[in-house]
Amino acid sequence: MNNFNFYLPTNVYFGKGQIKHLPEVLKDCGNKVLLVYGGGSIKRSGLYDEIMSLCKTNDIEVFELSGVDPNPRIESVRNGSKICKENDIDVVLAAGGGSSIDCAKMIAAAAKSDLDAWELVIDPSKIKEPLPIVSILTLAATGSEMDPFAVISDMKTNMKVGVGCDLLKPKASIMDPSYTFSVPKKQTAAGTADIMSHIFESYFSNVKEGFMQSRIAEALLKTCIKYGPIAYNDPENYEARANLMWASSWAINGLLKAGNEVEWCVHPMEHELSAYYDITHGVGLAILTPRWMEYVLNEDTLDRFVEYGMNVWGISPHKEKEEIAKEAIENTYKFFESLDIPMTLKEVGIDETHLEEMTSKIDKIETAYKPLYKEDMLKIYKMSL
Amino acid sequence: MNNFNFYLPTNVYFGKGQIKHLPEVLKDCGNKVLLVYGGGSIKRSGLYDEIMSLCKTNDIEVFELSGVDPNPRIESVRNGSKICKENDIDVVLAAGGGSSIDCAKMIAAAAKSDLDAWELVIDPSKIKEPLPIVSILTLAATGSEMDPFAVISDMKTNMKVGVGCDLLKPKASIMDPSYTFSVPKKQTAAGTADIMSHIFESYFSNVKEGFMQSRIAEALLKTCIKYGPIAYNDPENYEARANLMWASSWAINGLLKAGNEVEWCVHPMEHELSAYYDITHGVGLAILTPRWMEYVLNEDTLDRFVEYGMNVWGISPHKEKEEIAKEAIENTYKFFESLDIPMTLKEVGIDETHLEEMTSKIDKIETAYKPLYKEDMLKIYKMSL
Repeated sequence: MNNFNFYLPTNVYFGKGQIKHLPEVLKDCGNKVLLVYGGGSIKRSGLYDEIMSLCKTNDIEVFELSGVDPNPRIESVRNGSKICKENDIDVVLAAGGGSSIDCAKMIAAAAKSDLDAWELVIDPSKIKEPLPIVSILTLAATGSEMDPFAVISDMKTNMKVGVGCDLLKPKASIMDPSYTFSVPKKQTAAGTADIMSHIFESYFSNVKEGFMQSRIAEALLKTCIKYGPIAYNDPENYEARANLMWASSWAINGLLKAGNEVEWCVHPMEHELSAYYDITHGVGLAILTPRWMEYVLNEDTLDRFVEYGMNVWGISPHKEKEEIAKEAIENTYKFFESLDIPMTLKEVGIDETHLEEMTSKIDKIETAYKPLYKEDMLKIYKMSL
Repeated sequence: MNNFNFYLPTNVYFGKGQIKHLPEVLKDCGNKVLLVYGGGSIKRSGLYDEIMSLCKTNDIEVFELSGVDPNPRIESVRNGSKICKENDIDVVLAAGGGSSIDCAKMIAAAAKSDLDAWELVIDPSKIKEPLPIVSILTLAATGSEMDPFAVISDMKTNMKVGVGCDLLKPKASIMDPSYTFSVPKKQTAAGTADIMSHIFESYFSNVKEGFMQSRIAEALLKTCIKYGPIAYNDPENYEARANLMWASSWAINGLLKAGNEVEWCVHPMEHELSAYYDITHGVGLAILTPRWMEYVLNEDTLDRFVEYGMNVWGISPHKEKEEIAKEAIENTYKFFESLDIPMTLKEVGIDETHLEEMTSKIDKIETAYKPLYKEDMLKIYKMSL
């Protein structure tokens, strides 16, 4: 097991009605809040009114940045940080899914910096003492509510960049599974794929001694496989929404990675797809994942796929190893397909045109589970067409 | 799933040589440290010298409280808090296992209170702003390095009381698995039983919706079952020591309990055994656990025992449910026995004399997995003779 530092300071309030803790959480930081959100879903669901009413009753002044895009843009970050600077904001409150939270994180960083926001995105070591970040989660997917990451896009240059900085971990997150009842079916499916992909990125590690981490990864994968379809077919099933929401945080908050570090593979490849075509991140991941698995399956990686097959999918240990591995990959594909995720790039409007150009934007991933070079990535993209 | 608050602020430095972070961690709190430890094991292992040398080099003044007993006494807490008050100590540093850390926690609390330490033990709501607590863990067992609990004994009144207070979570913990290489075989076995008991206390819950928590509990149990015997037979096996150490923290740091609350059963019963007879806590737990399982197995609890048998012990799902459950309990017994833990009360010098008196000291546990009243506890004690 590798050495590691584990620090998880986000204070989580989980469950129905936990929004009642919002005023105490915010007032702990100050009285001026920037509320960051996307489209109208928090207005339709009543969450917006609830936040406003709680803040009003508690003398908290709210400024707003709305219209954050699903792949949040650097322009939103710039606009948000400008509001913070002009109004002496004390805390940035995101209400939404990963996009709003990611955007809020970078706003909090840029609000306390003289640099342009994009400079902080490409070099997070320049982030110093950001404003405190609080999130109210409405979508189980990216895990941004409890992690140090943010992904920001500059559509002018087709760049989508992932930022990782411990200072960006939210101070508190309010996670009420009933807020996800209204998440559309497509988003529920894509969110489940996103959670699973985060788990896979840590599970397929070359650190052999991370037994405990591997078994926990399998526990989280089983949770997604059980509850993804239930939430998809029965959107107001609280048990399913709660398990998915809590799994989304643990997939990426550092526990699976601690002692078990490996460089991610499928995410960087997907980031190019959505940077060029603005497709849903989780859909891109679902398309690429089984192809990546098929591509990296070999003599060296076989045993891990066998564990995956037996421990996650319950495939009989009496079968041949190769058969178990292939069945596990096939089950992964079929699982995403069962959630009606389009499972080819063509179905989401992507053809060969930019594939080679995309691979040129991704650094080779030499310390990955299986090293990936540009030609490998191109093959995986083509397998996904 | 029940509503919950999850907050885990302990900064963990895990791995070989992580002691190098000690000076920065301590200096973050101040320059005057009270070092709390037990017998001479940290002197024999060289850890004591290393701490002293690191502190000297970094101008940190060290005061000492040694001789903390395996079931830490209230007298040690009083002595430690006196040193803190007289010398204006900034931070309490425990070096050892759960006993030293538990003692340090209550010292930190008593040092900032005008009340007698025992008053804080019996009513932790009176604990206000304790001194910061830092731990260097040398034994994988109680999980005190990352949890809010401390267990303190008053041998004059045969009282052993568990304290739970969020303010007592260590600010930082240094966890170097190689420090546990020298743990005696008996302690390794008892520590493994202690970790497993913490997991069982959450796993056997009546909250049916905690699927994810249950699967993670199984992941941790599998970790103990794999590595307990390896560490027992090959004490310097780093992989085994690392997995056990990290599992010890996660068994009780709140993750398994979050959303899944249930009142503990076996721990309160064991606390009386060690309060009266000063036996090793983990040994008492190992003796009581399979008897408790046998006693609470019935039509209502059968399914959980079946899950335990299949998911943790890999028992074939094709067997009859009752057979799976019984085999799982038998495996639990045999596992502890394989670590040479004495598996009857008689073997640790306990006969019927005080059993009834002990049950009179435990409150009935009505909200337990299966409610336990005095007569139930007496039966379980007698099954364990």
